[in-house]
Amino acid sequence: MEFEVLHIDKSMGARRGLIRTEHGTAETPAFMTVGTQGTVKALSPRELKEAGAEIVLGNTYHLYLRPGPDIVAEAGGLAAFMSWDGLTLTDSGGFQIFSMTDLTKITQDGVTFRSHLDGSEHFLTPEKVVEIQAKIGADIIMVLDECTAYPLSYDKARKSAELTIGWAERSRKAFNDLGLGPGQAIFGIIQGSTYEALRKRCTDALIEIEFDGYAIGGLSVGEPKSAMFEMVSVSTELLPADRPRYLMGVGFPEDIVECVARGVDMFDCVMPTRNARNGSLFTSQGKVVVKNAMYAGDFSPIDPECDCYTCKNFSRAYLRHLFNAGELLAPNLATLHNVTYYQRLMREIRQAISEDRFSEWRHAFHSKFEGASQQD
Amino acid sequence: MEFEVLHIDKSMGARRGLIRTEHGTAETPAFMTVGTQGTVKALSPRELKEAGAEIVLGNTYHLYLRPGPDIVAEAGGLAAFMSWDGLTLTDSGGFQIFSMTDLTKITQDGVTFRSHLDGSEHFLTPEKVVEIQAKIGADIIMVLDECTAYPLSYDKARKSAELTIGWAERSRKAFNDLGLGPGQAIFGIIQGSTYEALRKRCTDALIEIEFDGYAIGGLSVGEPKSAMFEMVSVSTELLPADRPRYLMGVGFPEDIVECVARGVDMFDCVMPTRNARNGSLFTSQGKVVVKNAMYAGDFSPIDPECDCYTCKNFSRAYLRHLFNAGELLAPNLATLHNVTYYQRLMREIRQAISEDRFSEWRHAFHSKFEGASQQD
Repeated sequence: MEFEVLHIDKSMGARRGLIRTEHGTAETPAFMTVGTQGTVKALSPRELKEAGAEIVLGNTYHLYLRPGPDIVAEAGGLAAFMSWDGLTLTDSGGFQIFSMTDLTKITQDGVTFRSHLDGSEHFLTPEKVVEIQAKIGADIIMVLDECTAYPLSYDKARKSAELTIGWAERSRKAFNDLGLGPGQAIFGIIQGSTYEALRKRCTDALIEIEFDGYAIGGLSVGEPKSAMFEMVSVSTELLPADRPRYLMGVGFPEDIVECVARGVDMFDCVMPTRNARNGSLFTSQGKVVVKNAMYAGDFSPIDPECDCYTCKNFSRAYLRHLFNAGELLAPNLATLHNVTYYQRLMREIRQAISEDRFSEWRHAFHSKFEGASQQD
Repeated sequence: MEFEVLHIDKSMGARRGLIRTEHGTAETPAFMTVGTQGTVKALSPRELKEAGAEIVLGNTYHLYLRPGPDIVAEAGGLAAFMSWDGLTLTDSGGFQIFSMTDLTKITQDGVTFRSHLDGSEHFLTPEKVVEIQAKIGADIIMVLDECTAYPLSYDKARKSAELTIGWAERSRKAFNDLGLGPGQAIFGIIQGSTYEALRKRCTDALIEIEFDGYAIGGLSVGEPKSAMFEMVSVSTELLPADRPRYLMGVGFPEDIVECVARGVDMFDCVMPTRNARNGSLFTSQGKVVVKNAMYAGDFSPIDPECDCYTCKNFSRAYLRHLFNAGELLAPNLATLHNVTYYQRLMREIRQAISEDRFSEWRHAFHSKFEGASQQD
């Protein structure tokens, strides 16, 4: 993996860049679309491409349990398995292990948990997680970290951060020992809850270990937004300029804009895809909850400013009918629209950075967004 | 609607033709893809087009209840509502009323039934059904008929056929009174169970009333195949050569081939779409039930002879994974494949007729198909 910073906005830390891997190129700031089980829910890879997506995020926990890393490896890796002509990243599975499973034990060694599918017991170590991801074969793999809840006492957060640092060191070593790369890159994950000192300690330690990129984890878990922004800045100010920075699980369009301003290059979140399946659509005029009765006879598109296939061809009335009738085309058309919305947002951000007008663009975006939210 | 017979195979009654409406042209023999609620389940209109489909069949019963004919009319008719750039046909709703609802009363006047959605009571007459379909605005509308079960006594079948004939007469009159056409065409439906005399009586009566096309209904409901083929021939031998003939609800690829041989021009069935959603795929090598464990590590396409997006890009192993994981992409890719299979079948049939080799083609098809079924 190569990362190149193409331009830094004159008035702030917002950066425009490029990630190159053997599977292609992705522009940053990038929003990675979540494809948990080796598919972006309700969307075919060509639709995903059409929406402007360049990176798909697969979930190691899910793919490890089903279909299993060997099947994905035999298929030629995640991108080949799902026929995705673009970049892939796999998370470490940590978040899912800590949030979805019956977690039976966590030690320095690793985690023991029961599968949410069949209750079977599994033991994963940082090394094993690297091996699994090596098989799955994404361009970017993530280290196993401990995902903590919010709020958390300083003492617990400190112990957890040290565990995460130790695991990161072992992950890096396992990655080196496997002789992976340059086909695959590995990112470390910064934890430390909402404690500035711990975030700094964790950031410094990971920089010392050295990774191809650095993720900021454990945010957007219920803490105040101000704390999230502060913790992001603590890390981005310390991180080396020549490595991509990835804020995990974020999020709302307005939060993405704020964190780009703080120097973040990569984002992921289930929001565009999950909301779409619930009929909640992002538009230039605010949120449209298309199941609402008010749209029954509304023959205008979801978003008149959007040029996606959904907006070019279908009305709110039709989408509402599809959702009400439980038709499979509903999540498909809605997801295509929301993913397009997010990718257009990132394109606009990149364009504004290139032209040194990100600061103005950001203010205009927030004014429009807040106006739209109030109408909602 | 215009119908033109382009060629009749030299050795048999198989015909190749063209249906022209203001929404475009469809070649016959045609297989109409079922789009019950104003969408072909799991497929976008552009995917449907790509699969080669030219006519979509909407269900009047479903569209009448939801979103209601007024919404569809306001959208500009069914094709505009669903953004389908092709022909549409609506059934009369009769089949659904008789099979899906709590049918409370049937008289000479019409039928009283309770909606399967909310239990609300509705009374529909042949005239009302024409009016509803006029609003829905499909290119071809169907008369209300009584759908009978198999087996049925001669006496009951005779009474039912007479009711159907009376309703057909009233439907034709209602159609004329509304001043519909040439934008919309109306087809009569031949009933008469498996009784040759009744089929003849019904066919003659409908020819006398005169319709733009003639459907053969009440078959493929459990009767022996030989009876179905015989009843089809009884009608096609009497029907005027210059009007399209539509065999309703059929069906299996091998039955379509046999009924084309007997002079049928149009078919519809939920089989390709419904089977796809269950993971049952039609291929040149027989049926592939892709959920089966035997496909877990099978990286070959569903059908190596198929050029659809699914077969060109995805493996059986991937499809199996999608079905097992309950992913929405599974029904989408499977439906695209099955609809493509049916449309390719119809193209091959039309080509064979054009070249006066339908008889040979038919035998080769059956040999291959039976071989494939035996492997299955």
